[in-house]
Amino acid sequence: MKNEKPDVIKTVDVALGARSYKIEIGTGLLAHAGEKIGALVKGRQAAIVTDSNVGPLYAWTVKQSLEAQGFQVTVITIEAGEASKSWQNAEMILTVLLEKKFHRDACVVALGGGVTGDLAGFVASVYQRGIAFFQIPTSLLAQVDSSVGGKVAVNHALGKNMIGAFYQPKLVLIDMDALQTLEERHWRNGLAEVVKYGVIYDAAFFTYLKQNAADILARKLSVSAEVIAACCRLKAEVVALDETEGGVRAKLNYGHTIGHGLELAGHYNGYLHGEAVAVGMVLAARYAAEKGMCDAGIEGEIRSLLEAFQLPVKADTSLSIDEIMAGMALDKKVQDGQLVFILPEAMGNVTIVKGVLESEIRALLENDYHA
Amino acid sequence: MKNEKPDVIKTVDVALGARSYKIEIGTGLLAHAGEKIGALVKGRQAAIVTDSNVGPLYAWTVKQSLEAQGFQVTVITIEAGEASKSWQNAEMILTVLLEKKFHRDACVVALGGGVTGDLAGFVASVYQRGIAFFQIPTSLLAQVDSSVGGKVAVNHALGKNMIGAFYQPKLVLIDMDALQTLEERHWRNGLAEVVKYGVIYDAAFFTYLKQNAADILARKLSVSAEVIAACCRLKAEVVALDETEGGVRAKLNYGHTIGHGLELAGHYNGYLHGEAVAVGMVLAARYAAEKGMCDAGIEGEIRSLLEAFQLPVKADTSLSIDEIMAGMALDKKVQDGQLVFILPEAMGNVTIVKGVLESEIRALLENDYHA
Repeated sequence: MKNEKPDVIKTVDVALGARSYKIEIGTGLLAHAGEKIGALVKGRQAAIVTDSNVGPLYAWTVKQSLEAQGFQVTVITIEAGEASKSWQNAEMILTVLLEKKFHRDACVVALGGGVTGDLAGFVASVYQRGIAFFQIPTSLLAQVDSSVGGKVAVNHALGKNMIGAFYQPKLVLIDMDALQTLEERHWRNGLAEVVKYGVIYDAAFFTYLKQNAADILARKLSVSAEVIAACCRLKAEVVALDETEGGVRAKLNYGHTIGHGLELAGHYNGYLHGEAVAVGMVLAARYAAEKGMCDAGIEGEIRSLLEAFQLPVKADTSLSIDEIMAGMALDKKVQDGQLVFILPEAMGNVTIVKGVLESEIRALLENDYHA
Repeated sequence: MKNEKPDVIKTVDVALGARSYKIEIGTGLLAHAGEKIGALVKGRQAAIVTDSNVGPLYAWTVKQSLEAQGFQVTVITIEAGEASKSWQNAEMILTVLLEKKFHRDACVVALGGGVTGDLAGFVASVYQRGIAFFQIPTSLLAQVDSSVGGKVAVNHALGKNMIGAFYQPKLVLIDMDALQTLEERHWRNGLAEVVKYGVIYDAAFFTYLKQNAADILARKLSVSAEVIAACCRLKAEVVALDETEGGVRAKLNYGHTIGHGLELAGHYNGYLHGEAVAVGMVLAARYAAEKGMCDAGIEGEIRSLLEAFQLPVKADTSLSIDEIMAGMALDKKVQDGQLVFILPEAMGNVTIVKGVLESEIRALLENDYHA
């Protein structure tokens, strides 16, 4: 495996001045991660942070490729699942780095999905005030969303992603091979965020997704690589404009206000992130139409594509509306005590709306429950 | 008290582009903190983080001045002492902020010494990926060193300041009135860092300190304000050149390699930080002279001024040399397994030396123990 040449199909640049980096999308990248990482750092200490699902599949390959470049490699494996994105696990990993006497020129390599990337990135951001960080996202969700843009975080019992940083990786390696082992549900989970990019920025991309829905669902390599690259390019553009989410970057949160409420109400055991966002996007579009902000047809278009990707489009009525509302109130998208929503104006165009009343969203959920 | 006009004696600018801020040095600033902070943030939620020594003296004054500007104020009081700069206390404060539903436009105000500022700053840097942060340092050490430049951190059992960030405050308020209640030992503790600025950057300032040693020790207002402003200016210049300590900023660590080893060996119950740095500066100067890097007289000059300020100039022989060495090995100033030292070449001029052997430093300590 080591001797095969990696095939970089697409490269996306994230332009952030001194913190700029590349996203490489291709095949055979896992086995060549060591060369690519080794070319970007001086030190030769690396911690691979991975989870109990991904580690057994790929950690050995990445470890070998790093060792071939002279790295001293420590593999740290967390339990798969959102519960691992915790303050306690961050401390555990920091302690391992200290026990292994990792210096400031050491690096952290996140190998896994969004939970792994967010946790490992947070650790890299605070270890000795910040050491080099690499992302090797292995889930579609992480590839199109969380691995790009430098948002890293852990959860708190009182809210998701409440503790974190803006901390950019030095390189993102997206190996399409890793997607072949992804479970069906997790592939669809990532597609929710893919749909989001079309709705918020790019009507033509939304149309492309509709036209290629079957190939995308079947994970056809050429189409999948195109889709992932398009999402990374869109996200990179937004992040370059607004690294720390002072303005336009907030548009990426379309579907996430209600989505986070749903995730919190399900204690992260119900919806996957993308599934919750899918429901959130439909409800937000309905709210926008009710307010006369957009054509009522938008909701239907979004719902159809999500349904084509076999994603939920209706809130799970077993969840407590009170808990969903409480989860939303804790969300970072709350300002001055009122909810902030990202709402569609037309396909490919959303706007940030402040001052949405909690009572309106509660009514929206209640109507959805009874529909 | 509220009606008295504050008197800003000196202002120092820290030039860091979008992250630039001012240091205001004067009297009556505590009672007017609310106006100054309120002018710089949109939100009206503030957490004052303070300690069990400083809180009872000043927290009420700062709280009142914030409330007068419409702030909802939460006072969080930690136990005084280095042991409070912990991962656990960071979590405790983050939990309070979440319980109080602090939003992204809330702010954290550090009121106290270096421990308070480092801990509160770290919390501000990670809460919701970073909220506004203000420093009101009340110890000389914090005023001339830790409150300026954005280094924030907590300690780990395996090393001091091992977890943290570079995170700049929006304003630093140095109220000279607060120094009047500072214990003698803590005043002297700050003077060690003051001496350091002379040694590393400014021979004329070192001479000024010698000539005014008696007034400085007696805390004469005009001289003290001049000294603090000079130190802040020097530190601001260095930080502006090298915010994240990639190069020249490391010179600020003069005396700190051995110093941190001494602090760790004493489990933070022996030397205060400045006291440990005082010993570290003398030993580093001696090592430099032994290596022929500087005139042997430099050590004597530094020692004389430290003695005039009643600071220790010799390692406490009750500390285990093994533990001092182990503490140094954990220090961030270690690179590629060898020690990095800041060494004087002449008064006002130091250089960064890599590859110092642990055996040489062990011998230096052993000789000092037997001298």
